[in-house]
Amino acid sequence: MEIKDPVHGTISLGRDEVSVVDSAEFQRLRLIKQLGFSEFSFPGATHSRYLHSLGVCHVAGMAFDYIFKNHEFSTPQVRKRFRQVLRLGALLHDIGHGPLSHATEEVMPPRSALNIQTYTHRKSPGLLDGKASHEDYTVKYITDSALTDILKKSFPDITPYHIVCLIDKTLEAKDDFFIDNGLNFRTILSQLVSSEIDVDRMDYLGRDAYFCGTNDGHVETNWLLSNFTYHVVDQEVYLALNKRALYTFDDFLISRHHMYLMIYFHHKSIIYEEMLYRYLTSADCSYRLPADINQYTRCTDYSLYEHLANSTNYWAQKITKRQPFKVLFENHVTHEDPKMNLLADQLRSSGIDFITASSQARLSKYHGGSQEDKSFQIFVIDEYSPKETPITIDKCTQIFEMYEKTRRIERIYVPGEVLDRAKKIRESL
Amino acid sequence: MEIKDPVHGTISLGRDEVSVVDSAEFQRLRLIKQLGFSEFSFPGATHSRYLHSLGVCHVAGMAFDYIFKNHEFSTPQVRKRFRQVLRLGALLHDIGHGPLSHATEEVMPPRSALNIQTYTHRKSPGLLDGKASHEDYTVKYITDSALTDILKKSFPDITPYHIVCLIDKTLEAKDDFFIDNGLNFRTILSQLVSSEIDVDRMDYLGRDAYFCGTNDGHVETNWLLSNFTYHVVDQEVYLALNKRALYTFDDFLISRHHMYLMIYFHHKSIIYEEMLYRYLTSADCSYRLPADINQYTRCTDYSLYEHLANSTNYWAQKITKRQPFKVLFENHVTHEDPKMNLLADQLRSSGIDFITASSQARLSKYHGGSQEDKSFQIFVIDEYSPKETPITIDKCTQIFEMYEKTRRIERIYVPGEVLDRAKKIRESL
Amino acid sequence: MEIKDPVHGTISLGRDEVSVVDSAEFQRLRLIKQLGFSEFSFPGATHSRYLHSLGVCHVAGMAFDYIFKNHEFSTPQVRKRFRQVLRLGALLHDIGHGPLSHATEEVMPPRSALNIQTYTHRKSPGLLDGKASHEDYTVKYITDSALTDILKKSFPDITPYHIVCLIDKTLEAKDDFFIDNGLNFRTILSQLVSSEIDVDRMDYLGRDAYFCGTNDGHVETNWLLSNFTYHVVDQEVYLALNKRALYTFDDFLISRHHMYLMIYFHHKSIIYEEMLYRYLTSADCSYRLPADINQYTRCTDYSLYEHLANSTNYWAQKITKRQPFKVLFENHVTHEDPKMNLLADQLRSSGIDFITASSQARLSKYHGGSQEDKSFQIFVIDEYSPKETPITIDKCTQIFEMYEKTRRIERIYVPGEVLDRAKKIRESL
Amino acid sequence: MEIKDPVHGTISLGRDEVSVVDSAEFQRLRLIKQLGFSEFSFPGATHSRYLHSLGVCHVAGMAFDYIFKNHEFSTPQVRKRFRQVLRLGALLHDIGHGPLSHATEEVMPPRSALNIQTYTHRKSPGLLDGKASHEDYTVKYITDSALTDILKKSFPDITPYHIVCLIDKTLEAKDDFFIDNGLNFRTILSQLVSSEIDVDRMDYLGRDAYFCGTNDGHVETNWLLSNFTYHVVDQEVYLALNKRALYTFDDFLISRHHMYLMIYFHHKSIIYEEMLYRYLTSADCSYRLPADINQYTRCTDYSLYEHLANSTNYWAQKITKRQPFKVLFENHVTHEDPKMNLLADQLRSSGIDFITASSQARLSKYHGGSQEDKSFQIFVIDEYSPKETPITIDKCTQIFEMYEKTRRIERIYVPGEVLDRAKKIRESL
Repeated sequence: MEIKDPVHGTISLGRDEVSVVDSAEFQRLRLIKQLGFSEFSFPGATHSRYLHSLGVCHVAGMAFDYIFKNHEFSTPQVRKRFRQVLRLGALLHDIGHGPLSHATEEVMPPRSALNIQTYTHRKSPGLLDGKASHEDYTVKYITDSALTDILKKSFPDITPYHIVCLIDKTLEAKDDFFIDNGLNFRTILSQLVSSEIDVDRMDYLGRDAYFCGTNDGHVETNWLLSNFTYHVVDQEVYLALNKRALYTFDDFLISRHHMYLMIYFHHKSIIYEEMLYRYLTSADCSYRLPADINQYTRCTDYSLYEHLANSTNYWAQKITKRQPFKVLFENHVTHEDPKMNLLADQLRSSGIDFITASSQARLSKYHGGSQEDKSFQIFVIDEYSPKETPITIDKCTQIFEMYEKTRRIERIYVPGEVLDRAKKIRESL
Repeated sequence: MEIKDPVHGTISLGRDEVSVVDSAEFQRLRLIKQLGFSEFSFPGATHSRYLHSLGVCHVAGMAFDYIFKNHEFSTPQVRKRFRQVLRLGALLHDIGHGPLSHATEEVMPPRSALNIQTYTHRKSPGLLDGKASHEDYTVKYITDSALTDILKKSFPDITPYHIVCLIDKTLEAKDDFFIDNGLNFRTILSQLVSSEIDVDRMDYLGRDAYFCGTNDGHVETNWLLSNFTYHVVDQEVYLALNKRALYTFDDFLISRHHMYLMIYFHHKSIIYEEMLYRYLTSADCSYRLPADINQYTRCTDYSLYEHLANSTNYWAQKITKRQPFKVLFENHVTHEDPKMNLLADQLRSSGIDFITASSQARLSKYHGGSQEDKSFQIFVIDEYSPKETPITIDKCTQIFEMYEKTRRIERIYVPGEVLDRAKKIRESL
Repeated sequence: MEIKDPVHGTISLGRDEVSVVDSAEFQRLRLIKQLGFSEFSFPGATHSRYLHSLGVCHVAGMAFDYIFKNHEFSTPQVRKRFRQVLRLGALLHDIGHGPLSHATEEVMPPRSALNIQTYTHRKSPGLLDGKASHEDYTVKYITDSALTDILKKSFPDITPYHIVCLIDKTLEAKDDFFIDNGLNFRTILSQLVSSEIDVDRMDYLGRDAYFCGTNDGHVETNWLLSNFTYHVVDQEVYLALNKRALYTFDDFLISRHHMYLMIYFHHKSIIYEEMLYRYLTSADCSYRLPADINQYTRCTDYSLYEHLANSTNYWAQKITKRQPFKVLFENHVTHEDPKMNLLADQLRSSGIDFITASSQARLSKYHGGSQEDKSFQIFVIDEYSPKETPITIDKCTQIFEMYEKTRRIERIYVPGEVLDRAKKIRESL
Repeated sequence: MEIKDPVHGTISLGRDEVSVVDSAEFQRLRLIKQLGFSEFSFPGATHSRYLHSLGVCHVAGMAFDYIFKNHEFSTPQVRKRFRQVLRLGALLHDIGHGPLSHATEEVMPPRSALNIQTYTHRKSPGLLDGKASHEDYTVKYITDSALTDILKKSFPDITPYHIVCLIDKTLEAKDDFFIDNGLNFRTILSQLVSSEIDVDRMDYLGRDAYFCGTNDGHVETNWLLSNFTYHVVDQEVYLALNKRALYTFDDFLISRHHMYLMIYFHHKSIIYEEMLYRYLTSADCSYRLPADINQYTRCTDYSLYEHLANSTNYWAQKITKRQPFKVLFENHVTHEDPKMNLLADQLRSSGIDFITASSQARLSKYHGGSQEDKSFQIFVIDEYSPKETPITIDKCTQIFEMYEKTRRIERIYVPGEVLDRAKKIRESL
């Protein structure tokens, strides 16, 4: 089947993939907007996670073809199988996403209530505690829902567990599915699904920019893709990049960073999320996400908006009537700045209701340098120094040092009807 | 206020216009998709009538500025007032649109139930009978709703009635609002809101193409706009076009024609509309659109989809589960063709359920040549023959003759589960 | 090698193709602008035939892959060979193009002076007489120049003659190069190089639109390409199109037609061509195109402009100083119109110098219905009527009838310094 | 007059501006490519300085309108005059550009030979010595050529000297032309013509990206423009930016920086420049740029390429035949790296001819912190802290510190025929 996509032109799906896409579980993504509340600041941003997921699947196939163009797998079937499991991992990476925004994770049930058998294979068993996240629903959908049967029937040589292995790095391999000719391909396939330059980002940066109508997210994705390659260390296959695309890698990170600062952290999106959070944690909130996966399939942006419209809660009505609090104060900092607290104190003592919000963006998670990330390094290949051992990307570019500081956007919002009064207080400081 | 729009770049609204846009009545358009079911064939097409309406308002301002760049109104206030009423007419032309598609007009109340006072000024009183249409809700919103008060307060020198005069050509002018220096501008302002090359089309062709991801609708809109001008006949001001943009006019019509054939009449959109129609006319359908305008404001795509999801009706479930009937047969004709009936007979006698649908497109309504259209002619100005009297556009281009035939797409759909059986019958004919 | 192209993204060339592209003969195309004088009306249109030729080669490869995706050739080598000869035919189809415009064909030597051995294989020997055209130089370059040796060395299983067979349909096949499994592929490969929907047009429509900055030429090329297929009649393989892309075919023709009317026949391009023609046919013109192919390689837009700058001829100076005659009169007609002659008479009797120009465009050469074209028919495949015999495209669309009339743009130009006087005469008529 | 531009859509010129654009002096820019040799790496990059100059003029008008939208000049004439002198400065800023690349400045005459009277008004008289640069030709064209007369005639209330004052900051004002209501507007107008975010860059970044076919240079120019404003210090009017566009400013600088690293310093462009430089400094080079401004008008890319084609010099032939040296080694550094010297030594001792080239890019000239730049500061306006005194942009963003290091690309090239031998030497190191 061929699907028209304004971003990638035409997306082709195999007949078996169509049966996955046509499932009620996947179709639900049509009703989950990619950017939640962002449409209130960028009215073009009504695009869904459905189209994004198709796009990620498409980019995954392209990435695979570029990387392994000249690699000889033991048989054509192995090539086909690896490519297919990667495309499925990419297609389904978001399938458990909650309605509207990450704020709804607040009303998810305990993780244990989802009863995910697969988690017994997790390397760290403590991961079973706590509240469920959208990743948990993703794992549930793939391994234990009506979709699971479709996957098994459509792709007999791939198990749902293999797909989940590409999404959840903490799952132990149970067989040699990812081994070919003694090489382990799980690392590179996982990196393509989730890493500093994964196919998820490669789709959403350009897509969000397209629908928001901004140039910020437009990166030379094709240049990146066509310079993807691989590098083997200790029989393990890692994602690698040709050195000539290193500036594009920098651009890619910076571009994403600026998308956070300019689009995702737009003051209107942030205040709607804050208001939704306040509703969801209100005493009279009756909205809960179900542990039952079939009931969860009914939980969409649509049903949440209808729920809000029917609620008499203050915050639910504010959202429904599009009456967000207004920005009184905004500060972009890398260090603590006392100004916001000062103003907050004044507002409090003047009896003015207000909401503070702080949004933090960092260029990359490489900064943290957690052990997990270290084991998923991307390498750089230099064509002008073919004899040298490739080194990891964080040692090749200075972008991580240049952008090492976390950026924080601090804001104070007040109700529209007291904005003028609040402004006077701000100006009196 | 400045709004980012992927199609027009930045749309600027005046402070008074913002209060209209922020009303609950206008915000409802965020929840009405521009293309209804088209997102099932073109998944990018999730754009709303909200953004479209802002775009139409924007194009209206541009058109006005081009046309009257060198015209001297009696005072700057008159210029401003005409420009403003035009922008409001453009902004609000779709505000009464029903949920999802024109199919929902089926469940609208009688026109008389809306109790529209303004209609006493209609030239033809028979227009009061029958079922309400989305245009009736538009008139109601502008002249008798909470929005009416906002309009009156924000634009003291314009009455809601004047705005409606640009949308409904059958209303009689009650004052000399549209007269300046003895010239009547109502005709040209009406033509900009609704005619063969109105600002509505100028926005939606490019916008629908952008979100669907097709090139079909991209026309040199700016070339058209910058060649807009006016022509006076008997003190009445008509829309006119410089001759050098005549091929672009042709392109515009052809482009729209092809958008119908390729996008709007896509087989998936059509079958969803047919299925919705079947639900809405089912005995167990409980969905009705209310005559009360405040209740109507709650009627959106969202609430209709939720309604369908909660219904046990066969068609409602088909829509909810994305299980449309499949195309068995498709024929593009200009003359009656017996093939479809033949096949329908065979299916019927084989006990196969099926839906037939016929979609008709014509290049232009000029073909019909109704008296009303005749009185709203567009003129063509030839810079190389400045002395000659301008003639109407239908006499300048041969496009109307060339495309005079109506195009009809005839289709037969059957349930997916009997498609293979039905195909055999088709092939046996 | 990968080449960045604003139109197609990235164009990939094989190592052997690079040696062809790097030849002095091919590099010459960098110095031949795609649209000659059009840059005087569309200043972005400085793109060269070099990039166009690369683009055509690229589209040819795509077309081949779409058409034969599921076709089984007798061996992979046959597939590769057919694909390669097609790409070479596409790459080199314009290599003999003269400087600046077709006007320079006026100063080409007799065809016989080029001494093209290959022409002895032409089906109609009379074709050897007359003046050389740019096609003759193309044949010469491919079959008898330094480039010929490069071709032979780089592609040992393809002879230059085979490449030329795709460009010149009058050449007789001398061997069974184009035969595989009893099927003759020469027809479809020739059609891809030159026909109503050939890869040349598929490249230049979008490319010219991109560089001119107009939307007119943007067609859904990818939709066309992905619906290319083939149809066999009497062992001969013809180009075919899936019926669902038929409106896109219509669009493609109309789009090209409008590009002629709006871009290629722009009044400034036309007058520059007229002035160049007048120079080239002047008694004091010393510019001649050489029969020697190595000398011809030095003949570029650059060298012609330098020649004009050094000439004292009236027309050469007009061109060099960008002082074109100005349009006094313009008429778009399908029938003879006496107005132009009337005005010309008046100008003549007033002693005003003037130039008349008539530019004719027709939707398609199918109209003519020559026997040659008939033997190169394109077929249409209807997926909903798989059993019926495909019919030729001219019987499936009404576009040819609708646009059967030739459009003629008639113009009169006068020197800028007498324009005002001439206008008065025009207005006195 | 309206000119179609793929980048800005439509560029409108006033009748008086058309007479400037139509001059032989300005038309010469059609024959100077914007990016010189870049077309050898990016074949779409054939765009001329002609179209760029029109684009800069267009952006200048837009910038002026945004900045002074709400400013009241003493009379409408003053507004018009300031806007016009700015547009002329923008239009003509490049008019003296030499053929092909800055390399040709090598063969320019002594500055004194141009005999520029205006320079007697320069603040620093030492500026009269040395070799002429393209800026000198620009000043000459505007103040002392046939164009000067056209300017005087077309714009009676502006002298050519005023235009030059916006291009050459060292010229002293001779009258109060730039003063209105006690405020001096020369600074902001100069900043628009030349500064960190001038209209020149605003045009070329997007334009070069468009014609090269890369996304790198696409910045939210309209967001920058619409956030342009001004700030007055000591009666002097400075360019200012609203704080909300600060990330876009960062993007703008980074984008330009990456354009240098990826496009302008592409290895092919660099080697062609090196080869041209070697020709121009060869003993047998006969190419010299004339001091006479009318003769200079004949000096174009075209005439230089023809000159090279006619020369027997080794380098001239290398350029003409497109046989550039090939990259053997490439290193991107911020600190000195001994590798290149080591390799160079080895090549030398092996008797292999080679060219070394080092290209340096820095984010901004603000780094240098020269006194001149300091006096042309851009200010930042924070809407959330309206009472605070605006501070200069270098204190508002951390981008200058983050990118303070100069980036250097070091390369070694060798002739294509010894590349393989040279690679072996490289690998033996």
